[in-house]
Amino acid sequence: MTEKNQKQKIVIIGGVAAGPKIMAKLLRTFGNFQIDLYTEEDMISYSACGLPYFVEGLIEDVNKLIVRTPEQFEQKGANVHLNKRCTKILPQEHKIVVQDTKTGIIQQVEYDKLAITTGARPILPPIKNHHLENIFTIRKIKDGVNIRNKIRDKDTKKAVIVGGGYIGIEMLEAFFKNNLEVTLIERKEHILSIFDAEISDMIAAEIVNMSKGKVKILTSESVVAFEGGNGKVEKVITDKGQKIEADIVVIATGIVPNTEIAADAGIELGVSNAIRVNNRMQTTVKDIYAAGDCIENFHLVSKNYCWIPLGSSANKEGRCAAINIAGGYDAFAGVLGSAVTRYDTMSISLTGLTETEAKKFGFDVISSTMTKKDKAGYMPDAENITLKLVVDKRLKKILGAQAFGNGDADKRVNTVAAAIAADQTLDNFLHTDMTYAPPFSTSVDPLLSAALVINNQIYKS
Amino acid sequence: MTEKNQKQKIVIIGGVAAGPKIMAKLLRTFGNFQIDLYTEEDMISYSACGLPYFVEGLIEDVNKLIVRTPEQFEQKGANVHLNKRCTKILPQEHKIVVQDTKTGIIQQVEYDKLAITTGARPILPPIKNHHLENIFTIRKIKDGVNIRNKIRDKDTKKAVIVGGGYIGIEMLEAFFKNNLEVTLIERKEHILSIFDAEISDMIAAEIVNMSKGKVKILTSESVVAFEGGNGKVEKVITDKGQKIEADIVVIATGIVPNTEIAADAGIELGVSNAIRVNNRMQTTVKDIYAAGDCIENFHLVSKNYCWIPLGSSANKEGRCAAINIAGGYDAFAGVLGSAVTRYDTMSISLTGLTETEAKKFGFDVISSTMTKKDKAGYMPDAENITLKLVVDKRLKKILGAQAFGNGDADKRVNTVAAAIAADQTLDNFLHTDMTYAPPFSTSVDPLLSAALVINNQIYKS
Repeated sequence: MTEKNQKQKIVIIGGVAAGPKIMAKLLRTFGNFQIDLYTEEDMISYSACGLPYFVEGLIEDVNKLIVRTPEQFEQKGANVHLNKRCTKILPQEHKIVVQDTKTGIIQQVEYDKLAITTGARPILPPIKNHHLENIFTIRKIKDGVNIRNKIRDKDTKKAVIVGGGYIGIEMLEAFFKNNLEVTLIERKEHILSIFDAEISDMIAAEIVNMSKGKVKILTSESVVAFEGGNGKVEKVITDKGQKIEADIVVIATGIVPNTEIAADAGIELGVSNAIRVNNRMQTTVKDIYAAGDCIENFHLVSKNYCWIPLGSSANKEGRCAAINIAGGYDAFAGVLGSAVTRYDTMSISLTGLTETEAKKFGFDVISSTMTKKDKAGYMPDAENITLKLVVDKRLKKILGAQAFGNGDADKRVNTVAAAIAADQTLDNFLHTDMTYAPPFSTSVDPLLSAALVINNQIYKS
Repeated sequence: MTEKNQKQKIVIIGGVAAGPKIMAKLLRTFGNFQIDLYTEEDMISYSACGLPYFVEGLIEDVNKLIVRTPEQFEQKGANVHLNKRCTKILPQEHKIVVQDTKTGIIQQVEYDKLAITTGARPILPPIKNHHLENIFTIRKIKDGVNIRNKIRDKDTKKAVIVGGGYIGIEMLEAFFKNNLEVTLIERKEHILSIFDAEISDMIAAEIVNMSKGKVKILTSESVVAFEGGNGKVEKVITDKGQKIEADIVVIATGIVPNTEIAADAGIELGVSNAIRVNNRMQTTVKDIYAAGDCIENFHLVSKNYCWIPLGSSANKEGRCAAINIAGGYDAFAGVLGSAVTRYDTMSISLTGLTETEAKKFGFDVISSTMTKKDKAGYMPDAENITLKLVVDKRLKKILGAQAFGNGDADKRVNTVAAAIAADQTLDNFLHTDMTYAPPFSTSVDPLLSAALVINNQIYKS
């Protein structure tokens, strides 16, 4: 253990979002720390969420995705070790084992407090010939650079995206905007399966409608093999026997948390093999904290554990971990799973539980879905938004909201998130004093209309 | 009183927003009602808030501002009486006196339940020669039509707006967008004086900056006289001796509630002579309800009475009044004063108390103002927003928020409104799970950044 007047040794494993956040917060905190961050990558602190927009061409310089450089941290007194993979955690000895990815040299590093922020990695489904050239996953900066280079090649005309989650949809936008002919293949019945099925289907129809024949979405269909010539992908073969031509393929079939070294060290894992932490970001092993995409979350509505890896949560968890590592006290209660993405001009967002999830958790669900103008109907730029509110009939509590549309939909979901987080009842929520002026809303905001409809249904039924 | 099986007579005075809302809600409610609405105007149910955008030319057909016509209501069984001014309420006899504005004929109308929704009217300050031609106020449809006709006249080049509140700013946009040279004159030290002074000043500077020399804003200056030729306004004279040329003048120096007949009838008035009602919209006189711009409000943060006449509140109050008139039970707790307007691409919004107000009400105020990008800084359409959060240090409760900017500022104010309405603490608010993706936000939303800054200040101080 650290002697008095000696610096406390803080070691962080992982350098994308939560790790650098912990480092940054510790550097602003009073305390005598020696901070060492180890990452197997050759850079730290970048916005993986920005990659689809770099691929699309909205951002020219990939370096803009870098939030902070190792040099910026080192100037403030932290040590950043690139290309060093942590291969083992030794909790008894308060040490980790690190291997240089270039030289292979192995070293042991002592810690007083350890933070695991190893993130997640793409799942590669067992598809035949997935090692062919021009088949990509997208998670790291170099993936984005490679994909962009390929689509800027004038011979790249047809693309296939495997997987219809957020990343799949974001890559779909990137490819569509670069004039590729794109087929998105989702093995489940619906794309964006974290939404209720009828909402996902409306979104899918809208995407196809907006894309003027350039985009196809196939659901309930799986990719079983790739075919190629000269080592390069040329065709995508599905379980229904379709052969789809492709000059480029992106596989975005989900991610798994990087928690093998944590499990090896005897740290308890939870849902989806993510690391279980308490509300102070402490793992089940003394002096070891975790934050970011590699940890399990507690859901504030279902009151159950879940795994919803998001950059917004990583920041909150990183801050919480840092305060507690530094000897302070902070508690992060949990998440609502609030998330947003877009397809071209259409935003797609949700918070809390969907109707399907809410029923699964035993809530007495009532819901309302409506399509309304986002601002006064007479304003020339009024656009449709579709909102679904999910409420517990008996508790009269809002459980969740889903929204999409070309209008101003996503920020309304945040208004619901604030209400859910504060345990607001429906009766009070429908009186929320929301701002109104014709360029911004209707005199009864669509959100309040949805709440009123549910309220009327509850009292009549 | 009404006999059994006889229809209950509901009489509504006033036809712009709250009156028609009551009528519409009653028509959807079970109950045997005879509904009669009296208005001195020749139309009902229109969006006065939309007038500046009609003047600007964003809406071509003024009829689009009409929400519902008398015919639509009459088809559903209500009676709408246009051009009938209510001159007296006789509470003992349960009657009102109505005069036809065209024929002068007076009649008495019996009621079982009466709703006063008489709204408000512009204040006309005592400025010399204010009866000259081309000097307007703006409240009714015909005002909008007259102003628009005048600015479409090719000889109309210079405009003066007297008053720098919401309507003044909205008319400024309308005139600026129609290529007029505009001077806005505000007698107070700051325009938009419901904001904190430094925020108002930033907004004023931004308006001038966005207007490339076409817009001047004068503060701490009063208009004392108009000068004209041929009965038409030509010059505006200020107390500082300036003579400003003007082909058109709009006076937007505020409004007062139309409550004289209520006061005459012995109904208690409150702040600003607005009608005092309880949370069921009942006035102090039996069987008389009131709603909309003519009533006083209860402020959910200050817990004091106030007068904040807004279309959004009028709808909620109208609904509440209708349910209670119909014999049901509904309570409308109060308002936060949430409001929004815009100047060209800049939104301007607030909710709850400003710092100045909060101090006045004895709160232990701490605040944070920051200018941040509304989305990831690397996105090409990222724009600045300036946010001010006002918090009580000891209670750790959010008291209010002010926001402006070309970025997505106004909807973030609604997120704060939902949190305030639910009595959320700062500690919990800063963990609110807000949606994040680069085209929509930063990984730590600007709102949460502002909350974090205040939180850090509280713990350090």
